[in-house]
Amino acid sequence: MSIAVLYGGNRPNGNTETLTKKVIQGLTVEEIYLKDHLIEPIVDKRHTKEGFPEIDDDYNSIIDRILQHDILIFSTPIYWYSMTGTMKNFVDRWSQTLRDSKYPDFKKQMSPKRAYVIAVGGDNPYMKGLPMIQQFQHIFDFIGISFDGYIIGEGNKPDEIAQDKEALFAAEQLRKKLQ
Amino acid sequence: MSIAVLYGGNRPNGNTETLTKKVIQGLTVEEIYLKDHLIEPIVDKRHTKEGFPEIDDDYNSIIDRILQHDILIFSTPIYWYSMTGTMKNFVDRWSQTLRDSKYPDFKKQMSPKRAYVIAVGGDNPYMKGLPMIQQFQHIFDFIGISFDGYIIGEGNKPDEIAQDKEALFAAEQLRKKLQ
Amino acid sequence: MSIAVLYGGNRPNGNTETLTKKVIQGLTVEEIYLKDHLIEPIVDKRHTKEGFPEIDDDYNSIIDRILQHDILIFSTPIYWYSMTGTMKNFVDRWSQTLRDSKYPDFKKQMSPKRAYVIAVGGDNPYMKGLPMIQQFQHIFDFIGISFDGYIIGEGNKPDEIAQDKEALFAAEQLRKKLQ
Amino acid sequence: MSIAVLYGGNRPNGNTETLTKKVIQGLTVEEIYLKDHLIEPIVDKRHTKEGFPEIDDDYNSIIDRILQHDILIFSTPIYWYSMTGTMKNFVDRWSQTLRDSKYPDFKKQMSPKRAYVIAVGGDNPYMKGLPMIQQFQHIFDFIGISFDGYIIGEGNKPDEIAQDKEALFAAEQLRKKLQ
Repeated sequence: MSIAVLYGGNRPNGNTETLTKKVIQGLTVEEIYLKDHLIEPIVDKRHTKEGFPEIDDDYNSIIDRILQHDILIFSTPIYWYSMTGTMKNFVDRWSQTLRDSKYPDFKKQMSPKRAYVIAVGGDNPYMKGLPMIQQFQHIFDFIGISFDGYIIGEGNKPDEIAQDKEALFAAEQLRKKLQ
Repeated sequence: MSIAVLYGGNRPNGNTETLTKKVIQGLTVEEIYLKDHLIEPIVDKRHTKEGFPEIDDDYNSIIDRILQHDILIFSTPIYWYSMTGTMKNFVDRWSQTLRDSKYPDFKKQMSPKRAYVIAVGGDNPYMKGLPMIQQFQHIFDFIGISFDGYIIGEGNKPDEIAQDKEALFAAEQLRKKLQ
Repeated sequence: MSIAVLYGGNRPNGNTETLTKKVIQGLTVEEIYLKDHLIEPIVDKRHTKEGFPEIDDDYNSIIDRILQHDILIFSTPIYWYSMTGTMKNFVDRWSQTLRDSKYPDFKKQMSPKRAYVIAVGGDNPYMKGLPMIQQFQHIFDFIGISFDGYIIGEGNKPDEIAQDKEALFAAEQLRKKLQ
Repeated sequence: MSIAVLYGGNRPNGNTETLTKKVIQGLTVEEIYLKDHLIEPIVDKRHTKEGFPEIDDDYNSIIDRILQHDILIFSTPIYWYSMTGTMKNFVDRWSQTLRDSKYPDFKKQMSPKRAYVIAVGGDNPYMKGLPMIQQFQHIFDFIGISFDGYIIGEGNKPDEIAQDKEALFAAEQLRKKLQ
């Protein structure tokens, strides 16, 4: 059981990252910080004759990396009540990969995977983060991934997540489950 | 009553744009195509000493343009069950503007505005687009904008929106209201 | 293609009923007013030895009636952001029917059906009615019914629904579809 | 700080009740089992000349009891992805109390209160219970109550809630908070 973490945040050592580190402590995981990679927004060419052009950025290399793993952890601070734009641009590009002849089995390769979402927000995330969770459910349903759980934490200023005992407990429970 | 349209799509003449054009037909509006502008993802510096640096991209010029208007129409295709990453990156940057000394009254200037969302999706958008509508509600609530309505349309291939009679009717009703 | 309407409202000629009548105008439908029937709340006996006792009320007779039809229209005013307690008690009892030896094929008989929801509310139903739509989606998913569409209308005082042109248009579109 | 618990379930010693008992262990609370009281569904007379008639059931006595308390815990098993019909009928009747001359200050008396929801479901409640949480948010917003938190638990057969360590931990945290 092999694990990849996709970090969507744009702040080093943010609360979401801290919470995620609790989950993966002691586990072998591949960590991918999306902010350190160039990911172009999708240009929708689904319905053009020429189809999608090859894009010269880091997107495919990240896809290659996550395809190696059984479990994907989407770790994103809640920006404006959803995943960060950085992570959204990454997910948006799946529409291209689904039609990319270099990835003829993309959906088939994704669908046996299991996903978790770890998200920390500062504005009542236990309520206002719920549409984001529902959005992830639709995303995972479409691609065929099993949505095995999520942890919502509350925090704004650096290290505030240390006050959210329930999130920390949930992180510890998830860590044990992933061992 | 002055209107700005923010297009989030990355396909020229997509279904969402077509539906939006029905709404603004005959009206004077300022149209902003986000895909034609460089908008960097936010780098979260809220909690650093130095604060947010000035970013050399087109974001502020777009903020300057929308601040002139009373009504904002967010026109976005539904990509993976929410707004496009392009539009999300634009909204994410509001967190910076809220702390930007060049925009000391950003929230105060935004809050009297009224917003509409126009969104077209291909995968059961009347159901699976609802979390996105709830996200927009939270976004507008935070910034103080009144969320005056939305139109969801169904369409995938070019021009399919022409088959969604209810969306077209709603567009015509909104056009009359905005006259 | 045979149609049953389940009315959940407790006011004669309420806005939801008025909107529903637009949909079924000229069609042959079986109309069931839940308020005119005695429907006991479920007493959960799933995990008792003796199982569910027979309940002496009108519930089974309504089940017998809806099982005859291909299309079920759930017509409910939005009370406190969901279906009425009257309609909820009816749906809750499905848990009993699913274990009732008199209805050995209940799920199998329900699953080929298609459902619509018609709901009118007075407090921003286009936003605040969305969790109810999602609840209905989960309900129909569980029992296997296809959720083919919904109409949300706005109205509070008697006949206010006549002002909601989009709801009336949607009702007319649905009427044509059901012909 | 005085606490009332409203139980919506119809099974003695169900999982939701068990989880709720963890929360209130050692605290002085007033427990109200809605199933043991006669609560008629609301008959909507808001727009009639005569107004709402007096209803001869136990509803008002329960209102009188909860009005004495600062904190209300809504404890309901998740039936068909929302609160039980029994609890929904109770909430629906608030529309009458809001217009009842015997309770001229109902909203004013309710609005300083704080509410918690405790809900256990058997079908992926962490996902499929979310619309119910959003519904409660709208309910509490309308009446002015502060929605201070919720615990979702998973369980189906008797005592299965004992396996949901995160729900038990959250219950213990809430117990400490309410001390």
